[in-house]
Amino acid sequence: MSGQNIFDNDIFFDGYKKLREREKNANVLFEIPALFAILPDLNGKKILDLGCGYGEHCREFIAKGASEVTGIDISAKMLEVAMNENSDPSITYLNMPMEDLDKLEGSYDLVVSSLAIHYIEDFKGLVKSVYNKLRSGGMFVFSQEHPLNTTYGNCDFPRWTVDENGNKIYCNLADYGIEGKRDTTWFVDDVIIYHRTFSTIINTLAEEGFVVEKLEEPTPDEEILKKYPDYCDLFHRPDFLIVRAAKR
Amino acid sequence: MSGQNIFDNDIFFDGYKKLREREKNANVLFEIPALFAILPDLNGKKILDLGCGYGEHCREFIAKGASEVTGIDISAKMLEVAMNENSDPSITYLNMPMEDLDKLEGSYDLVVSSLAIHYIEDFKGLVKSVYNKLRSGGMFVFSQEHPLNTTYGNCDFPRWTVDENGNKIYCNLADYGIEGKRDTTWFVDDVIIYHRTFSTIINTLAEEGFVVEKLEEPTPDEEILKKYPDYCDLFHRPDFLIVRAAKR
Repeated sequence: MSGQNIFDNDIFFDGYKKLREREKNANVLFEIPALFAILPDLNGKKILDLGCGYGEHCREFIAKGASEVTGIDISAKMLEVAMNENSDPSITYLNMPMEDLDKLEGSYDLVVSSLAIHYIEDFKGLVKSVYNKLRSGGMFVFSQEHPLNTTYGNCDFPRWTVDENGNKIYCNLADYGIEGKRDTTWFVDDVIIYHRTFSTIINTLAEEGFVVEKLEEPTPDEEILKKYPDYCDLFHRPDFLIVRAAKR
Repeated sequence: MSGQNIFDNDIFFDGYKKLREREKNANVLFEIPALFAILPDLNGKKILDLGCGYGEHCREFIAKGASEVTGIDISAKMLEVAMNENSDPSITYLNMPMEDLDKLEGSYDLVVSSLAIHYIEDFKGLVKSVYNKLRSGGMFVFSQEHPLNTTYGNCDFPRWTVDENGNKIYCNLADYGIEGKRDTTWFVDDVIIYHRTFSTIINTLAEEGFVVEKLEEPTPDEEILKKYPDYCDLFHRPDFLIVRAAKR
């Protein structure tokens, strides 16, 4: 089984679980709304969710009219939560890495992935597999950490420059043009992510036969800013990139 | 006549002319090769060059087999140079801003623009006009300052953080998510450019009927780095974005 399985690490799993439970976390406020906003009509659709985690999105797809959902994830612990909390007769959960996509039977109207693709080394291979899994006219919608965010590894300088009051003045951007592996710390050391530039993401999709229809780089609206003023840092550097691409 | 005409300012014009004459300038090393590399076959093509400046590209298009080239520019001074140095029976130079594109007669196989579009406020309007000027299957290829570069206005902090030896450690990135007018200094004060995020650029092209085929964010190769090591800063933040989009 290929792929990185940081989600089965206990310390990581607990930290991640607490993060996702917080009301004000960035996923809930920015990534999930932006991802769902650019999904096509789900009615009667057969959907594949890559890196489905707890299966929250899978259940939401069914609630929005999807006929059948397959959620795959490399982490057995995540899928245990999914099967306990988000099971449904129309959802199938499979414990497998998305790098093994070609081994999966069947075809889909829509392939979705939420914040998992930056863990994948071979983006081109994945895009090729997704293309092959999609029916004609199908769509690939995914979110990932923003390229201005994946560029950071364990740099020997802080990610932000702050003023005397602790306000972020600007982010310290380095190595955007150098793609590849980044060794980061997120709850635990050595969480490996892969940095790709905008052009690599777009060109790979285009080369493999997709039409890029829509990108989103979410920033807070006034209501969110009033409640959580700290998120104004997203205007300096968005946390997420969301992409919708259609199979030609 | 709409549009900003900084190129007719004498101080700007002299500064710009000297910059373009330097062998190691970033246009010659990065932008021009990347732009020409993603052009389609020009043989027999009718081409429109938006912001043609000195007309160097117009002449090159003819040398590469184009049947007919129209170069438009807002600056009469630039076009004077174009007509003196790069005239050809198959090239027509017109003194007009690209915002007035709809007034131009005829249709084209290819619309090209080199480093002019970041001066344009109404990108959506321009993309719409370009679409209307293109024949079916036609292409729009343009370069502009990179979105990580247009984000800077006259900030009250330096663009780069350097170490004790003057080496750039990282660039100081702010306001990427805040689009619109930037007041910059380039030879003269008050050069107005317009910052747009990646998503706005891509989404606008898609919404107006283009398929984005290719993006480039040029960085130096080993040969260039050996001759001009200072350009390693482009790995932190590319200077240019080059886009090829096809009319559906």
